[in-house]
Amino acid sequence: MGPQPLEDLVTAFARLPGIGRKTAQRLALYVLKSPPQEAEVLAEAIRGARDNIGQCSRCFHLTERGHELCHVCSDTNRDSSVICVVEEASDALALERSDLMRGTYHVLGGALSPLDGISPADLRIDELVERVRRDGVREVILAHNASAEGEATAEYIHQRLAGLTNVTRLARGLPAGSDLDLADRTTLTHALQGRTTFR
Amino acid sequence: MGPQPLEDLVTAFARLPGIGRKTAQRLALYVLKSPPQEAEVLAEAIRGARDNIGQCSRCFHLTERGHELCHVCSDTNRDSSVICVVEEASDALALERSDLMRGTYHVLGGALSPLDGISPADLRIDELVERVRRDGVREVILAHNASAEGEATAEYIHQRLAGLTNVTRLARGLPAGSDLDLADRTTLTHALQGRTTFR
Repeated sequence: MGPQPLEDLVTAFARLPGIGRKTAQRLALYVLKSPPQEAEVLAEAIRGARDNIGQCSRCFHLTERGHELCHVCSDTNRDSSVICVVEEASDALALERSDLMRGTYHVLGGALSPLDGISPADLRIDELVERVRRDGVREVILAHNASAEGEATAEYIHQRLAGLTNVTRLARGLPAGSDLDLADRTTLTHALQGRTTFR
Repeated sequence: MGPQPLEDLVTAFARLPGIGRKTAQRLALYVLKSPPQEAEVLAEAIRGARDNIGQCSRCFHLTERGHELCHVCSDTNRDSSVICVVEEASDALALERSDLMRGTYHVLGGALSPLDGISPADLRIDELVERVRRDGVREVILAHNASAEGEATAEYIHQRLAGLTNVTRLARGLPAGSDLDLADRTTLTHALQGRTTFR
């Protein structure tokens, strides 16, 4: 259709998640129209992120290469006796943005999914159990996605940690700003079962 | 929040049109999780598009650098006596995708917009008039966006080309698959005024 370098860029953008062909073309044409240095910044940022980001050796969160520990694990103000278990680094980032978590994280790297061939050995569960045993952890908060895979993973980890520490999970119920009549049955079930005394 | 190289990449993605902070973070984390060569392909495609795409000297459509004419202008099967005037290269690409145009293009580089300080001198209108005079063009199809700016630009070009060639414009009316009761008043006005004999 267009010149080959444009097609190459459209194809590269379209490989990103949630970016269709049309959006990819819009992005590519924007890159062409923008000042050269802006395109260079984007190209360089892609390389930079790839080359300069590694994993925390303790919790497997993202960290700048050359740093053994992530900014959470290396922060002495954080309570290392509380571990919040998440599926992906993006979940830890979301919790950090909320500024609610004073403990540390453990990034599993996914959720159990027999259909996709993801078994406990593919996740960093042994490393979590080891951390709990070694560091005298007093609470593990399971912060999985509210999906079947998330539930199964939480259930499995709960069993593995039985007797080692307190295991809690995030509350389930109505999300903020939601309409009761639009909530699905599972959400309503959780909201009813988890109801609390009105104070 | 996250490591600096990640933040840099999120910021770079978020500068693209229609990409908010959340989407930018999703894209950045995808780049981190994907194989290194995929990130490299994207970074290289950005540079390649910037460095290897130029403008057709005749119609100002995109062309591979080193090529004087774009693939349309250099195609001897195309009818160079018909010029389709578009605002942006993306419009020419859309028409090419439809495979309906057998003529050539002229990319104006925008639309008249006094509020944004875009006057006729900022668009490639003189070049269009020159092409029409020189090449014995028999039809100029105005394919502007259906916006106030597009209308004003079409009107202006129509005046400039008066007596030089036939000037036509794209039909306005109901888009395919649309519901009549959801159409706005302007669209209905055009659809009624432009009604054709049922055959």
